[in-house]
Amino acid sequence: MPAKGVLVAVTADVVVAGGGVIGTAIAWRAAAAGLGVVLVDPARDEAASLVAAGMLAPVSEALFGEGALLRVNLLAVARFGSFAAELEEATGHRVGVRREGTLAVAYDPGDYAALMRLTAFRRSAGLDAEELDSRACRKLESFLTPDVHGGVLFAGDWSVDNRRYAAALQQAAAAAGVRVVRDRVTEVLTGDGQARGVRLADGGDIASAQVVVAAGCWSGAVAGLPAELRAAVRPVKGQLLRLRHPDGMPPVITHTIRATVRGADVYLVPRADGEVIVGATQEERGPDRTVTAGAVHDLLHDAMSVLPVTSELILAETCAGLRPGTPDNGPVVGEAGAGGLLMATGHYRNGILMSPVTADAIVACLTGQRPAAEWEPFTPGRFAGQPAGGEGTR
Amino acid sequence: MPAKGVLVAVTADVVVAGGGVIGTAIAWRAAAAGLGVVLVDPARDEAASLVAAGMLAPVSEALFGEGALLRVNLLAVARFGSFAAELEEATGHRVGVRREGTLAVAYDPGDYAALMRLTAFRRSAGLDAEELDSRACRKLESFLTPDVHGGVLFAGDWSVDNRRYAAALQQAAAAAGVRVVRDRVTEVLTGDGQARGVRLADGGDIASAQVVVAAGCWSGAVAGLPAELRAAVRPVKGQLLRLRHPDGMPPVITHTIRATVRGADVYLVPRADGEVIVGATQEERGPDRTVTAGAVHDLLHDAMSVLPVTSELILAETCAGLRPGTPDNGPVVGEAGAGGLLMATGHYRNGILMSPVTADAIVACLTGQRPAAEWEPFTPGRFAGQPAGGEGTR
Repeated sequence: MPAKGVLVAVTADVVVAGGGVIGTAIAWRAAAAGLGVVLVDPARDEAASLVAAGMLAPVSEALFGEGALLRVNLLAVARFGSFAAELEEATGHRVGVRREGTLAVAYDPGDYAALMRLTAFRRSAGLDAEELDSRACRKLESFLTPDVHGGVLFAGDWSVDNRRYAAALQQAAAAAGVRVVRDRVTEVLTGDGQARGVRLADGGDIASAQVVVAAGCWSGAVAGLPAELRAAVRPVKGQLLRLRHPDGMPPVITHTIRATVRGADVYLVPRADGEVIVGATQEERGPDRTVTAGAVHDLLHDAMSVLPVTSELILAETCAGLRPGTPDNGPVVGEAGAGGLLMATGHYRNGILMSPVTADAIVACLTGQRPAAEWEPFTPGRFAGQPAGGEGTR
Repeated sequence: MPAKGVLVAVTADVVVAGGGVIGTAIAWRAAAAGLGVVLVDPARDEAASLVAAGMLAPVSEALFGEGALLRVNLLAVARFGSFAAELEEATGHRVGVRREGTLAVAYDPGDYAALMRLTAFRRSAGLDAEELDSRACRKLESFLTPDVHGGVLFAGDWSVDNRRYAAALQQAAAAAGVRVVRDRVTEVLTGDGQARGVRLADGGDIASAQVVVAAGCWSGAVAGLPAELRAAVRPVKGQLLRLRHPDGMPPVITHTIRATVRGADVYLVPRADGEVIVGATQEERGPDRTVTAGAVHDLLHDAMSVLPVTSELILAETCAGLRPGTPDNGPVVGEAGAGGLLMATGHYRNGILMSPVTADAIVACLTGQRPAAEWEPFTPGRFAGQPAGGEGTR
């Protein structure tokens, strides 16, 4: 029970700490399942999901040897379509799912060799991959430079407009009865091995028998979680550009383009509303969210190397987000050291893609059911017994 | 007198149309000279002076053969110090004048040959110029790349923080009694060969016997001006970046650096508050003020070519402004076809530098005195009799 005798005014079946796409998807589905849900989030513009490109590409984000992660990603991409359709029906808003597929292109022979290795990996996972020479790439995307060495079309890769998706989730959650508290969870309250609620930064408490910590890279700042779990999540900075077509210019690309330019990876993701997202860096810089000259230069340089017409687009926004990374690059989803205390974080570069299946898994836990077997390797318990570092325990 | 019988509620000795640094400097000095001044400006953030780097470099902005323009610029730089001192005294705010000088650097031998030609020109104008080899350049600015071929120190070049300067001018004008009307002058009203006032976009009129059109590249949109003068001013787009040092990083440069990188010009101007301005493009794109991916890339690329540490700086802002260009690159300052009707525009890349001497010249006209002789080649009358193009008469 609350230690300091603070008056408990708000109660809920479930408190969800964190209002990014993971927390909001969980809150929506939990409320739809009949639970009384309070979502606590301090300020929306910190969520990594607002800085994402929204690629729904299960394999290219999984590294070689990460078979368990690949299986969760495949489950996630199979689930995404029906989840998005339900979300669009619930809200009446389109979330911008695009199904044109991803065209991976290699700038030079070395890049092409690496792409061929990735392609073999993707085929081994049962996914379609069509090899294309430079001319065939340009037949699909006519603005590609003729210098492109070759490419592969991954027809099964989709994308979603991350900001439309996040906004629709918020709207669906509100319509389903989720109450939103604009504050920050500083501590999970437990007693007798059971979750009892949360403490807020403003000093108030919320009583609930179940708590879901979905605070992205800030999850480690929540007191009351086991120290080894707090230490397991770190911010991985990603910088990203939002470009826009000038008035009257037709779309410069229709597929997501993933390019490797002399070893550097860059992607360009088209949106239905005329945006093109260019990303992204991966930087170990702690909680720094500044946009740097070098990152903007490199992203533009690599994008222009494969798609020179990029130079004509308007630079509408530069931004940086903090992905929740973990030591094994896998998410942290499930019970976390006390009854009713759940974590749903660590989705790293796959938060958008995994949000529907994460919501499914957490709602299963909340309602006494079993999550899908694919989640077993990603329970918080896998970090138990590991020494806690300094980062997460401050 | 007003043609449409609109009630004349506001009267003034002088109406100044345009609230950039030119219009505001004129308004301040005219009010200080005892005139009743109304300044009309629709929205501050359109002024080209807010997108400037604030370099006070009289010669490097004047092209070979533009001797008359050079003489005005030399007058302007000689005047700037005392004007800025008076402005700082009037407002109690520093405007960020820096006197470290400009280090011009050449990236390759071709760039160096061009720099040597500019240096000879500057010396012929009587200015100090000290040639430096690559090592000496790096002694002055230790973060320059060793690849720089050589450079020249122009010790007499200053810079000013354009935004502090513009804000101080506004404050000084207000303190001197200038009344500001937030509207747009659509027409200069004349009768019997004399200025009678202005018409505003909202339909009201302001009666005054003297009118100064200082509306930058939008001056051509003011009806009632002679057609050939309206046609003489066009927007020349300039894109510019505002970089910032991360917390704890010492300043990466102390001098303004002007670099030529394989024929492309870029400048980096340090500010006392930790900003570094990087600019600028020159584009004939009409009134377009969008920031483009290609321009940002090229500015960053050229800046990083000579000062690699630029990549570590924060990209705080990207912006585009519209300089008022003219057919002969010279300003348009003086009487414009009717008694009491004056123009002060066309300052192109030198608006900040020329604002004090332009204010001096216009106040001389307003008070029945003669402007300095250096202005004679830049009267509006030099365009009289030229055919009016389509751009300025729409």
